[in-house]
Amino acid sequence: MIHTPYLLFLGDAPDHLAAKVAQGIRDWNPDAARGQFRLPGCGADMGLPDMTLEQAKAAGVKTIVVGVANRGGVISPAWKAVLKQGIEMGFDVAAGLHNLLRHEPDLAAAAQANGRTLHDVRVPTDTYPIADGKRRTGKRCLAIGTDCSVGKMYTGLAMDAEMRARGLKSTFRPTGQTGILITGNGVPLDAVVADFMAGAVEWLTPDNDADHWDHIEGQGSLFHVSFSGVTMALIHGGQPDAMVMCHEPSRTHMRGLPDYDLPTLEVLRDTALPLARIANPKARITGVSINTKAYGEDEAKRYLEEVEARIGLPTVDPYRMGAARLVDALNAI
Amino acid sequence: MIHTPYLLFLGDAPDHLAAKVAQGIRDWNPDAARGQFRLPGCGADMGLPDMTLEQAKAAGVKTIVVGVANRGGVISPAWKAVLKQGIEMGFDVAAGLHNLLRHEPDLAAAAQANGRTLHDVRVPTDTYPIADGKRRTGKRCLAIGTDCSVGKMYTGLAMDAEMRARGLKSTFRPTGQTGILITGNGVPLDAVVADFMAGAVEWLTPDNDADHWDHIEGQGSLFHVSFSGVTMALIHGGQPDAMVMCHEPSRTHMRGLPDYDLPTLEVLRDTALPLARIANPKARITGVSINTKAYGEDEAKRYLEEVEARIGLPTVDPYRMGAARLVDALNAI
Repeated sequence: MIHTPYLLFLGDAPDHLAAKVAQGIRDWNPDAARGQFRLPGCGADMGLPDMTLEQAKAAGVKTIVVGVANRGGVISPAWKAVLKQGIEMGFDVAAGLHNLLRHEPDLAAAAQANGRTLHDVRVPTDTYPIADGKRRTGKRCLAIGTDCSVGKMYTGLAMDAEMRARGLKSTFRPTGQTGILITGNGVPLDAVVADFMAGAVEWLTPDNDADHWDHIEGQGSLFHVSFSGVTMALIHGGQPDAMVMCHEPSRTHMRGLPDYDLPTLEVLRDTALPLARIANPKARITGVSINTKAYGEDEAKRYLEEVEARIGLPTVDPYRMGAARLVDALNAI
Repeated sequence: MIHTPYLLFLGDAPDHLAAKVAQGIRDWNPDAARGQFRLPGCGADMGLPDMTLEQAKAAGVKTIVVGVANRGGVISPAWKAVLKQGIEMGFDVAAGLHNLLRHEPDLAAAAQANGRTLHDVRVPTDTYPIADGKRRTGKRCLAIGTDCSVGKMYTGLAMDAEMRARGLKSTFRPTGQTGILITGNGVPLDAVVADFMAGAVEWLTPDNDADHWDHIEGQGSLFHVSFSGVTMALIHGGQPDAMVMCHEPSRTHMRGLPDYDLPTLEVLRDTALPLARIANPKARITGVSINTKAYGEDEAKRYLEEVEARIGLPTVDPYRMGAARLVDALNAI
């Protein structure tokens, strides 16, 4: 559990794209994003108050979150000077960097000396059980994709936000680093040992109120041969009552696999549904989420209408039009 | 790589079942099993020469393999006295125990002092890549199961042995601890980090001669919700040209999951084949391997005939009648 509120450390991010983790936190957990810290030369701006560490302390910030990717796998001296001072002032530090905070001797020593915690969210911190497959109370929705990086996290976050805005019981359950930094907890599933993947997903989505929905962040794709095992564990560990299919229509091949074509939504549906029903016989597919960023407004509208007619399920781009229709479909279950 | 030949350490195994790892090595790599070492009270016997450590040394043994399960997760002082002496005499030691050899300070110190290696085959020793999905030369056969522990390893070992007996090019590729101890190498797939599972299987089954077959040890089942992600990674990382379906007909439910029924062989076929064809469009199912241990001779024969008529593929119990027909089916591809 990463303590909120956060100070978003943007460092010397050359541009906005380099700070997309910070943007995710800003968009999806605005209550937690109390301020931003920028070094000279920073080209990113979250539109949050720029704060010194002293101001962040006064504003009640508990954790400095590194919201920027580091270049060349090196945590620079300029970054470290700020983070170390922050630790000495009583902040925890959280990051999803490939090279770990805990492997930096000076940061580790400062955390040790000051009783602070370094959260490396790429590394599992909990011990997960082997999945037992027992049916759990409460309801679960899992985003599945025709490919990796087609908008599964965004879809889950948008559905969760929409449900909470309606006063419905809902929790987003992150399975990747950005999601974990957004909510402050979760399972970095791609770093979990194989035998415990499904058990970790069960652990992440425990018994809950009958009318509560978990929105489980999807990973990979059944059709992406590098990561399909992780997707399978999400489908069987998550026991989803509902699945939303996510797709990005401008892809010409599977991400990183030039020889692999994307499946159609029909093939994804017909593959995922029988597999999901092994763990939850009531599983169904309730909607389609399309990332239409490659299309203009009219073209996007036409594409969504065409898919909705073909698949027969509510089809939206939640970035353009919100997730209301996807949530309506869950409530109809 | 674990160096052969082996001295099989049976310790104080109360009975034969406790020494089933040793039995696997004895059955499937008899050239490697040079002798056995038994402590007072040992109730297991591999029918190998009983050797002192000195005799094993003289016989050219390179590695002492712990072929017995330890009770209560403790490596007893009696075991350790032998293993430590062996290390000091220049043997490596290999084991698949839950508690690791390397975590025993006296064994670790002895290995360090004498330049010997402790092989804990439950722990991955190699760094695996992320799978790239590229088609590899050579052919691959994967055993898939309706459930866990239905005879997948046995089937692969039997097919490999049959092919080698015929002078065909063939390698068994272990993915579990017993298989690794049998052949001396492999990938302990259930202990690999999620992101690298499929890549580990690609690594294990690299480019080979066009007429060479890898027999990949299967793990779990697509229908076993605790481990289906591991199975999925084997299907996509292994890119099997052929799959053999394995089944144990006396099961009343999935192993360890009392609420889950086993799939039929037809459902397994119809689920696995489209998934396998994502990675290898030429994938096919070539045979059925049934563990008929619960049946008498006549009953087994009738059952096999019935399945063969139903599924339309060579159906054998390789333990009772060998794997010749399964190999014939591969050669027909």
